[in-house]
Amino acid sequence: MQLGMIGLGRMGGNMLVRLARRGHDVVGFDPGPAQREQAEAQGGRSAADLERLVAMLQAPRVIWMMVPQGDPVDQTIAGLLPHLQAGDILVDGGNSRYTQAPVRAAALEPHGVAFVDAGTSGGIWGLEEGYCLMIGGPREAVERLTPVFRDLAPENGFAHVGASGAGHFVKMVHNAVEYGMLQAYGEGFEMLHSSPFDLDLAGVAELWRHGSVVRSWLLDLTARALTENPNLDGIAAIVPDSGEGRWTVVEAVELGCSLPVITIALQERFRSREKD
Amino acid sequence: MQLGMIGLGRMGGNMLVRLARRGHDVVGFDPGPAQREQAEAQGGRSAADLERLVAMLQAPRVIWMMVPQGDPVDQTIAGLLPHLQAGDILVDGGNSRYTQAPVRAAALEPHGVAFVDAGTSGGIWGLEEGYCLMIGGPREAVERLTPVFRDLAPENGFAHVGASGAGHFVKMVHNAVEYGMLQAYGEGFEMLHSSPFDLDLAGVAELWRHGSVVRSWLLDLTARALTENPNLDGIAAIVPDSGEGRWTVVEAVELGCSLPVITIALQERFRSREKD
Repeated sequence: MQLGMIGLGRMGGNMLVRLARRGHDVVGFDPGPAQREQAEAQGGRSAADLERLVAMLQAPRVIWMMVPQGDPVDQTIAGLLPHLQAGDILVDGGNSRYTQAPVRAAALEPHGVAFVDAGTSGGIWGLEEGYCLMIGGPREAVERLTPVFRDLAPENGFAHVGASGAGHFVKMVHNAVEYGMLQAYGEGFEMLHSSPFDLDLAGVAELWRHGSVVRSWLLDLTARALTENPNLDGIAAIVPDSGEGRWTVVEAVELGCSLPVITIALQERFRSREKD
Repeated sequence: MQLGMIGLGRMGGNMLVRLARRGHDVVGFDPGPAQREQAEAQGGRSAADLERLVAMLQAPRVIWMMVPQGDPVDQTIAGLLPHLQAGDILVDGGNSRYTQAPVRAAALEPHGVAFVDAGTSGGIWGLEEGYCLMIGGPREAVERLTPVFRDLAPENGFAHVGASGAGHFVKMVHNAVEYGMLQAYGEGFEMLHSSPFDLDLAGVAELWRHGSVVRSWLLDLTARALTENPNLDGIAAIVPDSGEGRWTVVEAVELGCSLPVITIALQERFRSREKD
């Protein structure tokens, strides 16, 4: 089907390519001309601003936003809204705080524009492996988007998990679980590194991928990274956080939900950035 | 090749079957007659005591122990030793503390018996999926065992990681990482359960298996468990610990290695068993 993709970075750019390869007519917008050229070179079309993007799509439109959470999402919606019409659907595929989706949905409702929150996991590997999509919002809009979800996701890799905000809630918890898993692996490899044996960490990571109960996609990536760069030379021991870990921990406090490991994993990221 | 398998429980019993199916001549011993009958029914032979087990194997022998860590291992070695001869190999495939392997290896060395520690991961699924084997000990003995390792493990699923004890060290850390991962998933699903949305936990677990970065074997098992029993009815909120988590945390303290998430995951297991 036809859709617009706003934000052609690491995620949105690859998603445009994945959809174009599967026969969708995707019009991309990004403030960077290089990103727009890249989109055109890889099977998409591109628009130089939001108004033109809307004009290049036939109503009722589907426009997927892949922009940083917070103000950029609201600015994009504000830039699009004067040009949209009833029946159009806006998808927020970024890492927005889940409480924002119902607020944005309510603001768009008088205009007849539906709002769908689609938590998107998969990173740079999603282009080939597919993206896991955690979708919240009104059923009718979600159903209309099914051809897009089906081609972005691997088999069984998308689901409508609930009302507006539910998709981003599930994505938020997903990322928090990832924090905990990464911390657990990190501690394990630190322990192997500290051992009295002269262990080959890349070899152990590779070994664990085959038949052990700790095998996982994150371990696949760890093994690849350690094989390419056994001492992780040039990689600083600093870990950023994108927001979902913080929101999960704050939300857990408000819900009275005990998340010791996820909380510690977040704190360890803060700790990694302290200079003293 | 020919080998003895001592301890025909959940792990050893299945390992005997996996090896027998692949053409090995496996003689099993277990104190339970039912386990011995089961081994015979599934393609193995069995012996009613350790002396007969040794007698049924041609020298130089390979005997694999799959018994609980601690005294049972030492008692098994003591029961076997009078009947062994130089050139035989004993494998400890259980979850022994890694410091025990060099002690046992040194005690067996004057008898010409080699001792190999083979940390074994895979649980009840290993029968079909294969076992991940983390192997420590003398190179010559490990090489002689290669046909057995190859058939127990999936492709690339075994490795000689170092000297005596290294196999059990890597297995110990493996299990500690598993503690951390399980705790991270558990917290994530608790958070989903506490959410303001009416989320289908089995559905989310299944969804995350496809294209998300938290996909893993443990998530596969979680999805299966939640699909079969969505509210985990009849499963007490109590988690035992088998020793490796404790050893990892004690060892980390001695090494000055920071393992906050693994430590908390262990403490949460203790906490789950407190009555007040």
